[in-house]
Amino acid sequence: MAENDNEIMDCHAEDEKEKTRACASRTHSYLESLTPSDRDGHSSTQSSHRLLAYSDALISIIATVMILPVAHTKIQEDEELTESLQQLISTKVAVYLMTFLIVTVAWAAHIRLFQVIEHIDDCLALLNLACMMLITFLPYTFSLMATFPENTLGILLFCTCVIVIGMIQAIIVVYGFSRPFLLNEQIQMSENPAFYKWHILKVISKVPVLCMLAVIFSFIFSPVSYVLLAIVIFLRYISLSARWCYGKATGRLEEPADSMVFYTYHPDEPLSKERVEAFSDGVYAIVATLLILDICEDNVPDPKVVQEKFSGSLVDALKEFGPEFLAYFGSFATVGLLWFVHHSLFLHVTRATHLMGLFNTFSLAFVGGLPLAYQLTHEFARNSRNELEAIQISCVIIFFAGLFQLAIWVTALFGERSALHPYVRFAGRDHAFMFAKLALYPCVALGTFVLTCVLSRFSAPIFHLMEITVPFVFLLLRLLVSAGLSLLRRLLSSIRRAMRSPRKTRTPVSLSARWRPSIG
Amino acid sequence: MAENDNEIMDCHAEDEKEKTRACASRTHSYLESLTPSDRDGHSSTQSSHRLLAYSDALISIIATVMILPVAHTKIQEDEELTESLQQLISTKVAVYLMTFLIVTVAWAAHIRLFQVIEHIDDCLALLNLACMMLITFLPYTFSLMATFPENTLGILLFCTCVIVIGMIQAIIVVYGFSRPFLLNEQIQMSENPAFYKWHILKVISKVPVLCMLAVIFSFIFSPVSYVLLAIVIFLRYISLSARWCYGKATGRLEEPADSMVFYTYHPDEPLSKERVEAFSDGVYAIVATLLILDICEDNVPDPKVVQEKFSGSLVDALKEFGPEFLAYFGSFATVGLLWFVHHSLFLHVTRATHLMGLFNTFSLAFVGGLPLAYQLTHEFARNSRNELEAIQISCVIIFFAGLFQLAIWVTALFGERSALHPYVRFAGRDHAFMFAKLALYPCVALGTFVLTCVLSRFSAPIFHLMEITVPFVFLLLRLLVSAGLSLLRRLLSSIRRAMRSPRKTRTPVSLSARWRPSIG
Repeated sequence: MAENDNEIMDCHAEDEKEKTRACASRTHSYLESLTPSDRDGHSSTQSSHRLLAYSDALISIIATVMILPVAHTKIQEDEELTESLQQLISTKVAVYLMTFLIVTVAWAAHIRLFQVIEHIDDCLALLNLACMMLITFLPYTFSLMATFPENTLGILLFCTCVIVIGMIQAIIVVYGFSRPFLLNEQIQMSENPAFYKWHILKVISKVPVLCMLAVIFSFIFSPVSYVLLAIVIFLRYISLSARWCYGKATGRLEEPADSMVFYTYHPDEPLSKERVEAFSDGVYAIVATLLILDICEDNVPDPKVVQEKFSGSLVDALKEFGPEFLAYFGSFATVGLLWFVHHSLFLHVTRATHLMGLFNTFSLAFVGGLPLAYQLTHEFARNSRNELEAIQISCVIIFFAGLFQLAIWVTALFGERSALHPYVRFAGRDHAFMFAKLALYPCVALGTFVLTCVLSRFSAPIFHLMEITVPFVFLLLRLLVSAGLSLLRRLLSSIRRAMRSPRKTRTPVSLSARWRPSIG
Repeated sequence: MAENDNEIMDCHAEDEKEKTRACASRTHSYLESLTPSDRDGHSSTQSSHRLLAYSDALISIIATVMILPVAHTKIQEDEELTESLQQLISTKVAVYLMTFLIVTVAWAAHIRLFQVIEHIDDCLALLNLACMMLITFLPYTFSLMATFPENTLGILLFCTCVIVIGMIQAIIVVYGFSRPFLLNEQIQMSENPAFYKWHILKVISKVPVLCMLAVIFSFIFSPVSYVLLAIVIFLRYISLSARWCYGKATGRLEEPADSMVFYTYHPDEPLSKERVEAFSDGVYAIVATLLILDICEDNVPDPKVVQEKFSGSLVDALKEFGPEFLAYFGSFATVGLLWFVHHSLFLHVTRATHLMGLFNTFSLAFVGGLPLAYQLTHEFARNSRNELEAIQISCVIIFFAGLFQLAIWVTALFGERSALHPYVRFAGRDHAFMFAKLALYPCVALGTFVLTCVLSRFSAPIFHLMEITVPFVFLLLRLLVSAGLSLLRRLLSSIRRAMRSPRKTRTPVSLSARWRPSIG
């Protein structure tokens, strides 16, 4: 096994070198045409790459911002969670989840728009910034709605924002079609760009029209307008899952016609993989640092307090904050490792579909709640019921965050041919390794949950042990998987031999062959 | 002029199309070797691109985090800024600036490290995450130092973090050199990689050794350890500026020997342009959304208060928060437009040097303070002295943020050949346009500052007018510059004609030619 492994590595290193060399020489000779800024920076037209990266960064911050009000809800120590407090928290969590979904809907619309318009100029950049400013305001209007469900002001503000965003997007489309060199090549080459233009404008106008209706109904009978808004948010998800179920049920997934590849909601339609990565990176980065933001601000002790209460001993004063630091390191490690799994996963994925994007959104929404769950685990008295609950909530959140990552992988396996690299398709060592990475967190979280149920008195030590062990397991995972596979193979071959020796009839085929490393 | 313009555009569009086509066909045939994930995702080796993007996102958040304690210092309305409060704020601002510098030093070290190690595997990714976790903790240790200058604990924590970071980096280097296919091609090809290894390890160990000394001195005589820490932070900047001045004074800037291109502090040494952009995007994104984070959390009125104080009128309640919203939109627009200028600037830049990186850091540090300055402008009573001061501080911050961006441009002009695209070098319409973009904010800020000094009674209206006008000026800037240039050209040619007609001796050469559009 080890020899085989080294061979692959060597072979790969050689391969790599040659390619790099070939690439370098090519890059050199084509330098002028290859580097994007060189190609596009010329005159007023620019590559849209950095604009999109900046937009992704902004949107990912905004998607996670509503977790802060949840975080800063003060809970009295040693007190059972009262009903009113539980209600308050669950309202805030609902606002967070809804905001996350709304913002990702806006983000998906932004992706589709800039799949059509591939180059930008100054005017488009400024229009996009205006659009971003309005998107960043959406969470606030939403929390107004949640706090004052009777008042129509929240709905009015929200709808106004969405309508203005729609108008800006329409202007961007019209502007883009008036300068065809900004457009996607496919549309540029097509015979009837005007058809595309109207089709895209029609799709863009759907949401603002729904919002306009919601505004009108908000004056007449406000519940209807909430229903309309729910349709706006969930339309995409509902249509996606309906189509997927339908496609799976009938067994035939007709490919979307090439001409309509933009502005449809087909679940197998490709999402920009690069932007999914950029958005996820943004969310993971914000979430990982969420606790340090609080720590830097709140947990620097006051010199006077240190002097009076701890007789000048800073170490004693900081010991008070011990649980906060522990929570920070624990949540940073967990979020970092989930990012790591996500990173490994998307290295193997060649094409992200809408369905994968949907699972990714769900996974990220859970990840966003992680730091708070971690913080809660340390806020209550030892062995109290609250502590146990907080630890179990953390486990549930980790479990679902990991599970939806696994769902992305399973979705990719279904669309194997177009969505995955050849060497990670079914069977093969890389496949097993990837599966182990993805399964680790859900399994560990489930195990911890069950253990804390059984040994509720030791829930905190079990949880901390889990926090400390998991990073090392990740470090050694490759070794563990290799060892596990070779063990499995030996076991299988010995079973086969044992079965073969008494009676030479049928041998179990391919079971071990499946797990033999497949050299692509 | 306009015809000329159209010609360029057409020519450019043609050019673009052809290149895109050529590119597309090339991409197709080389597909297997070109896409990075395809090339590097194979086996365990991966492209480091996404790891670096995630690190940049984390570091940019951490760099700006210490602005929050400044933001949340409560100032009583209508009260003159007392001395103790001023002192508190200036301490916090100093902590913010120092943190920003420290974190950018760590970031620069990270860039250099991953210029050597160009590919990663799982183990390196996990080591890097551990490194990131410690970097995110640096701001906290620093604010401990600032709050308890007498206590050695802050220094001890800081130095421990830095030493551990250094150790992890050393492990990364040793690990990288044990698997040569992970390394930079140049080192991979070299005859004596061991020499590089020891050189790099030596450079990496410098900072931890200084920190070790600081730890020892903190027990003996703590001021010495502060001096040592200052050396750690400023070493890079001092050596950079000294070398630059020396180089400019003696007129010869010897290029760093190729073999030593890594791990030197030469100001003309290239920094990774991509990472400078990613880091800047992160900072701009965080700063732009800094105020909405607060607004979403604090400015949703309590239903009870609305009922009692405003007799149920939500609009009246929200009017109270008007200034906050105005500050948000103002700061978002300003930060967004500064990002836009930065984006345009780096489209023209082909290579970022360390000196440019330094100016970029300074510019970003000022940008970080912008939202707070904006927030302050609306927090005081109309026409109070505090309001005037807040507005003037905002102007000063905008001025310096813009000025350092201009400094990046000037630095790029000095290293014209290697640092800029041919078509934006001296003269040419693109050059003038870029200059106008860069000069706009400093000029406007200076103008507003002077105006508020003269017409101090109308400072707030002047400031708001500025906020509203600038985005439109940016939208129309291309037109304005074109008009200005053609006006200038006409003026010059009429002067020339006037001078030529009386006596036909010498004509002023090239002045107008300089400003004629140069078609690359």
